[in-house]
Amino acid sequence: LVKTVSNFGEFTLIERIKQILPQTTNSDVLVGIGDDTAVIRIAEDRALIVTCDIQVEDQHFRLKNISGYQLGRRAIAVNLSDIASMGGTPQFALVSLGLPPELKVDYFDQLFEGIRDELSRFSAHLIGGNLTKTNHKLIVDITLLGEVHPQKILTRSGAKPGDKIFVTGKLGESGAGFQVLEHFGKEYPVSYDPMVNAHLQPIPRVEAGKLIADYQIATAMIDISDGLASDLNHICLMSNVGAEIYQDQLPLSDQLFEISQISNKSPLEFALHSGEDYELLFTIRPEVNLEKLKEIGQKLSLPITEIGRIINKNEGFLLINTNNKRLTLKPKGWDHFAKKSGG
Amino acid sequence: LVKTVSNFGEFTLIERIKQILPQTTNSDVLVGIGDDTAVIRIAEDRALIVTCDIQVEDQHFRLKNISGYQLGRRAIAVNLSDIASMGGTPQFALVSLGLPPELKVDYFDQLFEGIRDELSRFSAHLIGGNLTKTNHKLIVDITLLGEVHPQKILTRSGAKPGDKIFVTGKLGESGAGFQVLEHFGKEYPVSYDPMVNAHLQPIPRVEAGKLIADYQIATAMIDISDGLASDLNHICLMSNVGAEIYQDQLPLSDQLFEISQISNKSPLEFALHSGEDYELLFTIRPEVNLEKLKEIGQKLSLPITEIGRIINKNEGFLLINTNNKRLTLKPKGWDHFAKKSGG
Repeated sequence: LVKTVSNFGEFTLIERIKQILPQTTNSDVLVGIGDDTAVIRIAEDRALIVTCDIQVEDQHFRLKNISGYQLGRRAIAVNLSDIASMGGTPQFALVSLGLPPELKVDYFDQLFEGIRDELSRFSAHLIGGNLTKTNHKLIVDITLLGEVHPQKILTRSGAKPGDKIFVTGKLGESGAGFQVLEHFGKEYPVSYDPMVNAHLQPIPRVEAGKLIADYQIATAMIDISDGLASDLNHICLMSNVGAEIYQDQLPLSDQLFEISQISNKSPLEFALHSGEDYELLFTIRPEVNLEKLKEIGQKLSLPITEIGRIINKNEGFLLINTNNKRLTLKPKGWDHFAKKSGG
Repeated sequence: LVKTVSNFGEFTLIERIKQILPQTTNSDVLVGIGDDTAVIRIAEDRALIVTCDIQVEDQHFRLKNISGYQLGRRAIAVNLSDIASMGGTPQFALVSLGLPPELKVDYFDQLFEGIRDELSRFSAHLIGGNLTKTNHKLIVDITLLGEVHPQKILTRSGAKPGDKIFVTGKLGESGAGFQVLEHFGKEYPVSYDPMVNAHLQPIPRVEAGKLIADYQIATAMIDISDGLASDLNHICLMSNVGAEIYQDQLPLSDQLFEISQISNKSPLEFALHSGEDYELLFTIRPEVNLEKLKEIGQKLSLPITEIGRIINKNEGFLLINTNNKRLTLKPKGWDHFAKKSGG
């Protein structure tokens, strides 16, 4: 039997890559393979952050659902979110496009208008890239560079048992926004605007990430791209710990409960697994005074919610439900490659 | 009539992007959009080079013709060549893959073995990237970082009338190697090995590029990815000059003449337009002593050939043929997006 990549999960594939590569002996590589971004020391007090991400038509977006402008902003935002999760400041972007010949040039222009506007919100600049032809699908690949102080880098691997777990914003909004578009089309009720925006034009939490890093209050951080359960699991795997999260403390919007009814998917499922929220998930030592965190939330008008606790690895990866029952949590969202369960 | 990207050439699309973007006011951006790579100053005497490039299945390679190992080496080599053309030293790579679920995991492993080996030839390291699922086609996107001294950067825009034009290696080899594989399959005569290797595993001219930059003898440099005519045209457009090249001085292998007979394509056409040679094309002031250049060629056992001269823009873009006739040269290879002529 010939094994294909669909027989493996993302984490297993990354482990295979690590096996193949030589151990990096370069001490300037502060963060290598397996985190949100790579980080390279460029001076005593300066480190360069580098991240890249491909978005492929019909895999990550559909041309009929997203304007060129929205796609441009979104592609940048997704990468900004990775920089945010390291506590860094974004600076420069490169854009590589795979262009199908039939793509309208207006869509091309709008894509770059979106890229420009999303970068300029954070005073970052487009400095290069590449155009190539593809047969059918539009491919948008972004490389983003940023900077961080080497002592303020927040990786996935610093969480310790006892740490409190926090999340910015609300959970499940992007997934619900997708359902709003599927159900109502573009003429959806105005009350669902925040959800649809969360889906089409997510707001990367760059300022929050920077402040959390500056105050040096957190032990680990990641952005939620695959879903809360999956990304918390990434922290647990890299930190060699377990976690428990409290269902009744998850920050959910009233509208999420409405969309839950329509879409036949529970609010909990949205919150845990729907992904693409691009909120920050981070851990803080239990003894740390939370005054600074409150300050960040107030300054940015951003809800920041304590949703759980890091525990020992052998205690498990758990959801404490509304009846106070301890359930094993499955990191469903995380596996890009394995065949869909039940499929 | 709705215009699509196929109505435009790459250069026109890049001009559109420049129109949309704000003028960069950041003085750390030493080279921005429109050159082989971007360059950012990170210290008085240090600049960071960044480049990225997407390779898409059935557009840039066919799985049946190239092993995972070869593809990995090739994808890195193509980016190394861009760093070489700036006179830089490669250091770090990020790899983003779009993986079709049916891709064999052996192919995946070999891809990373190729990436590892090509990087290690230049003491560079893989430090990150991203895996994502695609529906059908394998996508290999590489981001490569390197370093150069800010005063030694070689862009496309420094050529001046009177400069001599040089090229490393032989021309048309990669295109001919493709024809060898098409004609003979994998059981081709051994004498065509250099051509097939030029096609499947091009050698990026990193050492040559660095020495040319170190000696500060050149005024402009580019790597030949689209074809000699097209890439020389890039230098001419960015330097606002013309050029003439001498047909009888083009470095061609004996085997190229044989493949020319088989493939019904003239040696000149291979040399001017077939692309993907990844040789360096550069210009040198006429008064410069060429001793250093000879030294580089001898040190690296690499032919370096004078093939033409930069002239004024209004004098044209010319080929001086073997009968000493001045013909207008067409930068054919350069246009990725316009429909094929005659198609």
